[in-house]
Amino acid sequence: MSKREELPVGVFDSGIGGLTVAREIMRQMPREKIVYFGDTARVPYGNKSRDTVLSYSEQIVRFLLSQDVKAIVVACNTASAYALPEIVKHCPVPIIGVVEPGAVTAARATRVGKIGVIGTKATISSGIYDQCIERIRPGTRVLGQACPLFVPLVEEGLWEDPVTDEIARRYLLELMNEGIDTLILGCTHYPLIRKTIGRIVGPSVQLVNPAYETAIELRDLLQRENLLASEAPGLGSAESQYRFYVSDMADQFRAFANSIIKYGILSAKTIRIDQY
Amino acid sequence: MSKREELPVGVFDSGIGGLTVAREIMRQMPREKIVYFGDTARVPYGNKSRDTVLSYSEQIVRFLLSQDVKAIVVACNTASAYALPEIVKHCPVPIIGVVEPGAVTAARATRVGKIGVIGTKATISSGIYDQCIERIRPGTRVLGQACPLFVPLVEEGLWEDPVTDEIARRYLLELMNEGIDTLILGCTHYPLIRKTIGRIVGPSVQLVNPAYETAIELRDLLQRENLLASEAPGLGSAESQYRFYVSDMADQFRAFANSIIKYGILSAKTIRIDQY
Repeated sequence: MSKREELPVGVFDSGIGGLTVAREIMRQMPREKIVYFGDTARVPYGNKSRDTVLSYSEQIVRFLLSQDVKAIVVACNTASAYALPEIVKHCPVPIIGVVEPGAVTAARATRVGKIGVIGTKATISSGIYDQCIERIRPGTRVLGQACPLFVPLVEEGLWEDPVTDEIARRYLLELMNEGIDTLILGCTHYPLIRKTIGRIVGPSVQLVNPAYETAIELRDLLQRENLLASEAPGLGSAESQYRFYVSDMADQFRAFANSIIKYGILSAKTIRIDQY
Repeated sequence: MSKREELPVGVFDSGIGGLTVAREIMRQMPREKIVYFGDTARVPYGNKSRDTVLSYSEQIVRFLLSQDVKAIVVACNTASAYALPEIVKHCPVPIIGVVEPGAVTAARATRVGKIGVIGTKATISSGIYDQCIERIRPGTRVLGQACPLFVPLVEEGLWEDPVTDEIARRYLLELMNEGIDTLILGCTHYPLIRKTIGRIVGPSVQLVNPAYETAIELRDLLQRENLLASEAPGLGSAESQYRFYVSDMADQFRAFANSIIKYGILSAKTIRIDQY
């Protein structure tokens, strides 16, 4: 029987975007084990309703608990916005999302008190970043912009492409005109086109990547709860240290995961998530 | 108890694309009732595996049968490619897809014997159009091209836009260089950007819209089976003649349906499709 702190951390997303969060956890906490679930059969979440996102997220949490995780990271902004407030009420292990850490960092970073947030339609219309930032730093102006074409453009690999530039210009123009000095990448896909976004908003706007901040918050949380892993991973153990599950298209997911995570060859297994 | 021929036709798609097929049925057969299901919670199907698309399609067929339909139209190329061959084996009512009608028309239309097919990744990699056309007109060259960004561009309303032009040029360039004279719009979303596609391939390439051909095949089928509706619809009956169900986001679906179908105000109801 493992000691509780040696159990894995559960991380989930609607698909591949949450890998940017998993990658940060691997970088910052190389001793932690991870069980990742990507809901590739039902991706994207960003155009779905609150009820649907909540019901899918609850299934995933049940699956991760069945894998004996010690904590859960909701590595998806849409699920963090729509499902986390409900799930946190009855989850038997500590659970955090990506919204709060990003909001805290942005609220600290802005000098002019104007923060832009880009995300899916669901995340933006939930108003979650506005509420979070208002609590942390009342009076801050938060300007949201849904960017529904970013996820398909990222998934098609057009990370550096004139089409992505053009779409990004359209989405970001109004935020720029409003004079923001801080921009939250409020969807876990967006760090993959961070360069394009940075080029368009220019060096005067600070980009906040909640993936990075979420990994820091996870470390703090595990420390507080005495749950930090202390055993060094065994030799050649990427395969056993990091387990990936998806609801569809495991091969495609694996290829993608291996292109952005450089910790040895990873494999991925398909499960029927609607049975949880 | 209704006479069997007065029962509705079931039509389904992964989301909104199948409305182009429903619209053709309404135009060509104004007496028919329709029960439409759009799987808006799990859209898109085009990047999913065969097993997942089959399992989702089987749920939808069970739902439509529970609505007492006299026949079913699979108004989705991906589901026609991946699920129809299996479902047809045990479906208790006549069922047709969109692939066969489009393939027949294209095989008749080509003079040079070179047909292009554009569709989702799933439809193109299934090779279903190639197989169909080879059976109808052996020796025809069929050139497939997956266009994964077309569905999100259509869903975002960029029907006439320089970005859609640019993406279409990239997708269609190779087919043009190969000298096709016929192009199948192998995804029910694509007729909505038919103008853009037509402008890029030019007037020498004939576009085949399977939605149109599928409605003709449905009429032939209903006639053969003595299932054509004979009662004229009642006054102001668009609401009762056409019933729309979706798995999520009914309001958004309704707005979209009303923008492309001009037969009175339509409503849409959300159901839990994974319970079928």
